[in-house]
Amino acid sequence: MATHKLLLLPGDGIGPEVMAEVQRLIDWLNAQGIASFETEQGLVGGSAYDAHKVSISEGDMAKALAADAVIFGAVGGPKWDSVPYEVRPEAGLLRLRKDLELFANLRPAVCYPALAEASSLKREVVEGLDIMIVRELTGGVYFGEPKTITDIGNGQKRAIDTQVYDTYEIERIGRVAFELARKRRNKVTSMEKRNVMKSGVLWNEVMTQVHAREYADVTLEHQLADSGGMNLVKTPKQFDVIVTDNLFGDMLSDIAAMLTGSLGMLPSASLGKVDAKTKKRRSLFEPVHGSAPDIAGKGLANPIAMISSFGMALRYSFDMGDLADKVDAAIAAVLASGLRTADIKSEGTTAASTTQMGEAILKELQKLHA
Amino acid sequence: MATHKLLLLPGDGIGPEVMAEVQRLIDWLNAQGIASFETEQGLVGGSAYDAHKVSISEGDMAKALAADAVIFGAVGGPKWDSVPYEVRPEAGLLRLRKDLELFANLRPAVCYPALAEASSLKREVVEGLDIMIVRELTGGVYFGEPKTITDIGNGQKRAIDTQVYDTYEIERIGRVAFELARKRRNKVTSMEKRNVMKSGVLWNEVMTQVHAREYADVTLEHQLADSGGMNLVKTPKQFDVIVTDNLFGDMLSDIAAMLTGSLGMLPSASLGKVDAKTKKRRSLFEPVHGSAPDIAGKGLANPIAMISSFGMALRYSFDMGDLADKVDAAIAAVLASGLRTADIKSEGTTAASTTQMGEAILKELQKLHA
Ligand SMILES: [Mg+2]
Ligand SMILES: [Mg+2]
Repeated sequence: MATHKLLLLPGDGIGPEVMAEVQRLIDWLNAQGIASFETEQGLVGGSAYDAHKVSISEGDMAKALAADAVIFGAVGGPKWDSVPYEVRPEAGLLRLRKDLELFANLRPAVCYPALAEASSLKREVVEGLDIMIVRELTGGVYFGEPKTITDIGNGQKRAIDTQVYDTYEIERIGRVAFELARKRRNKVTSMEKRNVMKSGVLWNEVMTQVHAREYADVTLEHQLADSGGMNLVKTPKQFDVIVTDNLFGDMLSDIAAMLTGSLGMLPSASLGKVDAKTKKRRSLFEPVHGSAPDIAGKGLANPIAMISSFGMALRYSFDMGDLADKVDAAIAAVLASGLRTADIKSEGTTAASTTQMGEAILKELQKLHA
Repeated sequence: MATHKLLLLPGDGIGPEVMAEVQRLIDWLNAQGIASFETEQGLVGGSAYDAHKVSISEGDMAKALAADAVIFGAVGGPKWDSVPYEVRPEAGLLRLRKDLELFANLRPAVCYPALAEASSLKREVVEGLDIMIVRELTGGVYFGEPKTITDIGNGQKRAIDTQVYDTYEIERIGRVAFELARKRRNKVTSMEKRNVMKSGVLWNEVMTQVHAREYADVTLEHQLADSGGMNLVKTPKQFDVIVTDNLFGDMLSDIAAMLTGSLGMLPSASLGKVDAKTKKRRSLFEPVHGSAPDIAGKGLANPIAMISSFGMALRYSFDMGDLADKVDAAIAAVLASGLRTADIKSEGTTAASTTQMGEAILKELQKLHA
């Protein structure tokens, strides 16, 4: 059995607590011989600043580059509000994204039947929802140059941001989306604004070409990003994989997450380039939620997004789709049994601490594996 | 009583049918002496192309510039799919927006209690919803230069779009939003992405300054556009007026419209600069829906969005807020009575043609006015 190297970066706030529940799963998988993980721990964000006055040390960056996958908790908190900008907690995550060249952000929006009631949408619209939004993460208007604010006289300033996309950037994110679709329901919806943006014209053209050339077996459709957003709110189950640029992906992935009614329970993955030596794809997995410093250390944190992010690592970095399915099923079963952490508590359900939730999920996983 | 000059541009498809119901209202208002409107008719879109081989004639453009308000129906249809790009139906609307300098797009999202069930959101989340989205319409990434696709060799192309905002553009759209808020629930939410865009930084700065200098009596809050989008889906009633740039407004106004469950029933207004001679603000009012060529001429079209757009003209161009309130109330009353055109028909309601719906709304207005 191949041994996989994981770097665990719990980070700040509730990060260490929810990461401990991933560690529980890893320990069991190793002990049972179901998988073989070699884990290292590192510091990122405020905890790295406290130890080394940086948001991530060079040593931990080297470990991240050497790992087969990075499992990331959460960073930030009021304690570090006034540290210098370059070493603020978020800078650690940005450095990881940049050095690992994580250009593809995978944001699943899954609605657990047991929690469908928490959505602002009608149950029948969202129950069973399972969308994957693939957001381009390293290009577009957030990074293009020029990016300036200039004083142009007469009390006027001019702000400029530049959206730039090259063919290769669209091709590689397209390939990620089509590959994902093949393992799902075989449909990709590409979203842009080709009616008003040149980058939308090129995006549409390149997606169409990559599809025709390499993925003709997958269904491809195109939607304008604004009507795509409307369709997400009206009939979200029409979608399987949505692929879109950095800015539209920023908007649409959050809206899709909100449909599920359980924003705090969603995982994410960021995939990078394939390493020339190891032939492995760089990857980082993290919950969508933040570090929640207000509830840190109280055993109140919900570990589901973190465990689910580890499930994505199993699926996308280690080709253990069956095991990942079981992790997902274990989470759904625990929710169906009525167990709830404080953030998702509702009438008639049973309260659980972070640890109790993690233990319950492992127990379900053991049952499913038996 | 002041006489107001209206230019009616019915356009194509269902445009003329729904415009006829506005004409019915105008005739009654004139006959009763409640208001004094002088109307002219013009051609735009495909109908202008059929008559003059242009999307709008110079004569009609001159009438639009001379009018106190332009009431616009809808343009386009398969008949004109292959006309030259410069004279396609949509070009007529773009020309009007440009020459009238219509920089502020007002998109109300109102949920009629009688139609709340049609929303994909839960009734309690959207019933009574009344938001106004103010979208900057003439600047930003859809218009900035450079805007190019370049062949950069090796089979690679590079697409560039440029987001540009100057202080004055942000100031003037801000003023429109603050003025609107004063006549509504006195709250403005400004949305941008200052965390990743320089134009967001300037937008935030200028809104804050205009507010402090001229509108300190209005509540101003700032939200990042992506979490603003989430809040729109989760708790939309928290908003009164939302002001945002061209691209974010494009996305958010459509999502807000979809919340209401009756996209085809929403009006819009576009406001321009104040004319130096007349001191009046240029303006154009149009339904959000399109020309629906498939149902044109069959008496099936829903005239509510068109009538409601005329209501916005009463309110925003002619300071007849009371009368506009009555138009809105008449529409709500007719819907509450169970009358429905085909597009919004549901079980237990009564079918109505375009004309019957228009007549019923006028009848309610007469009652309210008596
Ligand atoms: Mg976002
Ligand atoms: Mg739009």
